[in-house]
Amino acid sequence: MNEDLARRSQEGSSEWTIRQKDPPTRRAFLVGAASLLGLSAAHVLLNPRSVNAQDVPDDPMRVPGSHASAYGSRSRFEQTQRLAKAQRSRTPLQDLHGIITPSALHFERHHNGVPLIDPSRHRLLVHGLVKRPLLFTLEELKRFPATSRIMFIECSGNSGKEWKGPNGKTVQETHGLTSTSEWTGVRLAMVLEEAGIKPQATWMLAEGSDAAAMTRSVPLDRVMEEALLCYAQNGEPLRPEQGYPLRLLLPGWEGNTCIKWLRRLKLVSAPVMTREETSKYTDLMPDGTARQFTFEMEAKSVITSPSGGQRLPSPGFVEIRGLAWSGRGRIEQVEVSVDGGKTWRKAELQDPVLPKCHTRFRIDWWWNGEAAVLQSRCTDETGYRQPTLQALVAVRGTNSYYHNNAIQSWHIDRTGLVRNVHV
Amino acid sequence: MNEDLARRSQEGSSEWTIRQKDPPTRRAFLVGAASLLGLSAAHVLLNPRSVNAQDVPDDPMRVPGSHASAYGSRSRFEQTQRLAKAQRSRTPLQDLHGIITPSALHFERHHNGVPLIDPSRHRLLVHGLVKRPLLFTLEELKRFPATSRIMFIECSGNSGKEWKGPNGKTVQETHGLTSTSEWTGVRLAMVLEEAGIKPQATWMLAEGSDAAAMTRSVPLDRVMEEALLCYAQNGEPLRPEQGYPLRLLLPGWEGNTCIKWLRRLKLVSAPVMTREETSKYTDLMPDGTARQFTFEMEAKSVITSPSGGQRLPSPGFVEIRGLAWSGRGRIEQVEVSVDGGKTWRKAELQDPVLPKCHTRFRIDWWWNGEAAVLQSRCTDETGYRQPTLQALVAVRGTNSYYHNNAIQSWHIDRTGLVRNVHV
Repeated sequence: MNEDLARRSQEGSSEWTIRQKDPPTRRAFLVGAASLLGLSAAHVLLNPRSVNAQDVPDDPMRVPGSHASAYGSRSRFEQTQRLAKAQRSRTPLQDLHGIITPSALHFERHHNGVPLIDPSRHRLLVHGLVKRPLLFTLEELKRFPATSRIMFIECSGNSGKEWKGPNGKTVQETHGLTSTSEWTGVRLAMVLEEAGIKPQATWMLAEGSDAAAMTRSVPLDRVMEEALLCYAQNGEPLRPEQGYPLRLLLPGWEGNTCIKWLRRLKLVSAPVMTREETSKYTDLMPDGTARQFTFEMEAKSVITSPSGGQRLPSPGFVEIRGLAWSGRGRIEQVEVSVDGGKTWRKAELQDPVLPKCHTRFRIDWWWNGEAAVLQSRCTDETGYRQPTLQALVAVRGTNSYYHNNAIQSWHIDRTGLVRNVHV
Repeated sequence: MNEDLARRSQEGSSEWTIRQKDPPTRRAFLVGAASLLGLSAAHVLLNPRSVNAQDVPDDPMRVPGSHASAYGSRSRFEQTQRLAKAQRSRTPLQDLHGIITPSALHFERHHNGVPLIDPSRHRLLVHGLVKRPLLFTLEELKRFPATSRIMFIECSGNSGKEWKGPNGKTVQETHGLTSTSEWTGVRLAMVLEEAGIKPQATWMLAEGSDAAAMTRSVPLDRVMEEALLCYAQNGEPLRPEQGYPLRLLLPGWEGNTCIKWLRRLKLVSAPVMTREETSKYTDLMPDGTARQFTFEMEAKSVITSPSGGQRLPSPGFVEIRGLAWSGRGRIEQVEVSVDGGKTWRKAELQDPVLPKCHTRFRIDWWWNGEAAVLQSRCTDETGYRQPTLQALVAVRGTNSYYHNNAIQSWHIDRTGLVRNVHV
């Protein structure tokens, strides 16, 4: 009996093993999630089976554990990774919980690698159309009044390979260039006001101290209210790949404008037309013109579980989980369809729902074993609703790579396999 | 000129170097935070001085940076640590920003070390006064509807050495046994309802699978609403020292009740009177009786900067920063005194202010160079206000070690040195 129980518990260890049950009630499905036990259940716990790993104790209660440590690390049994390729890496959204992205798994995008910077030597220059050019050390910036905010950053190239057909196999591949952190820094406005903004100043050039000299220009009036000069992420100093020791953060705007390794802010009277706002990071339209300075990331959502590459092994209860975000404010609602967009149900949003921040949504579903197409669509507080790919392509064509915020479809076949489709 | 500018910038690199200025206006102090520059400022940036570290490039813009990585780590220039001693480690509150504690720096408290647990072999047993004893694998628990919440956990022994006099030199030593994470898991009520709660069940025993068999009993009706069975922290699986792969989380309750490495929940009809709720984790009163089952962590706050061991090198602007929290709900307000409690000003609270969560407060201060005593006191949404140590001792005496939520005083002498005092 005990062996049988132990074996049955082991069988349940792949993520989507769900025991078949009678038709659902809100509660009934949950009984299927655990093994019913007889009185000898405790005996199973006290006599765990041995495993191969030599130093993993058969019974952790019989061996003193390890001492406290100065700086912790994750369990050796956890190996989820960013998908890393030279100048970018993608967040494993399918493996994450809640809204905070662990800093170690925040997506990366850089244009000539992550520079190695000694913070004691780093400076921020503020010059151009200012009354007093200023040069700041980091410690000087940290003495300004600080502010913290939990926000997403998304690369405008996120889902860029999904314009012409289903490309990514997993949600990490299709949507992994977005992450959320608590960012801390100084309000840009406070620093610029110290320098004294001349009336002619209408744009600002921001430059990174990486080997790409990553450079963007942004309209001054639109960034004065919310922009931050950030030195911390999730409580700690910025991670190197996020711009250590200083980055610009323009809430809700495409990631590349949030210049990392920030060394220079120059106030100017017109956009500078850098490579990254002419050759790159513009959207080529069907008529041959280009959309330029498309800063805000529009409302977008995606189901992270179940998602591409996962498998539902049998019919039964599934909690559909995902993330929604908008560069224009709060997420107002998320709807989920399991029939490819014919009918929609409203998902539950996890509190707190913060502006310009990943918002976790969840909704119950009873999978009946038939083929299904799962979709999510969100609406933000401006009333904007995430479009279908068809609607987006009708306006934008398929020449452009950036700013694809279309509804994502996950097809589930009768074997339970989930894959990326366009419907 | 350039050399002079570079030298002056270098001089500003210790945290509390603030240039002396004329009396304050809200803006004027800020000018002091940066070096005024001539036209050749850019030249300083383009010609940084060389340093000893051989592989740190003189100019990071002239060397391609490193490639993207699968799992990131912090900069080698950042070395802040937990203060670790065998069975506990303390969070470096003085070095942190915002409200999220990086998982690697979350405080630790264990009673016989951190067990090494293979999650595929871990089980949760639910038994005792239930209709159906149940045994869960982790994967089975993860299929339940999930919920996430940003919350603090505080050890009831936090500030325990401050009862009889100033003991800790830094805020890490006096208050480092509290941290905040986003926790994700299953609602305990949902799991217990699956097992079927018998009418006689009024208490619940929770047991960890560490070598201390850490065990506490809690009143069932009081934990049903909010308790979580957590498997994730800040987006990732729990860290080993936080109970990997599963912990109980009782929002706002003393940390030791949030049983880590959770293996067993037994519903019972009375408290079990384990060692950890009789010999330990009770509060010995002046009359020889003991307060027992003092679960909620009362409202508490502390100034983290400036704090013990730091130095203000010269008069001028200081942003006073700190944290406040309450096990009974939201923080309503935080007041700060710079004259040892004679007068108080209301600090600004960082949004969002979440229930049972660290809340960041900040307030401007112009230090005139005279001796000062900094204090903070908070009030929570129940109307409860953090007491002075004298008021607390008048009721509780000095026999007990736990649940010291008194106002903390930091003395600043005329040299700017900050130290822990009782006033």
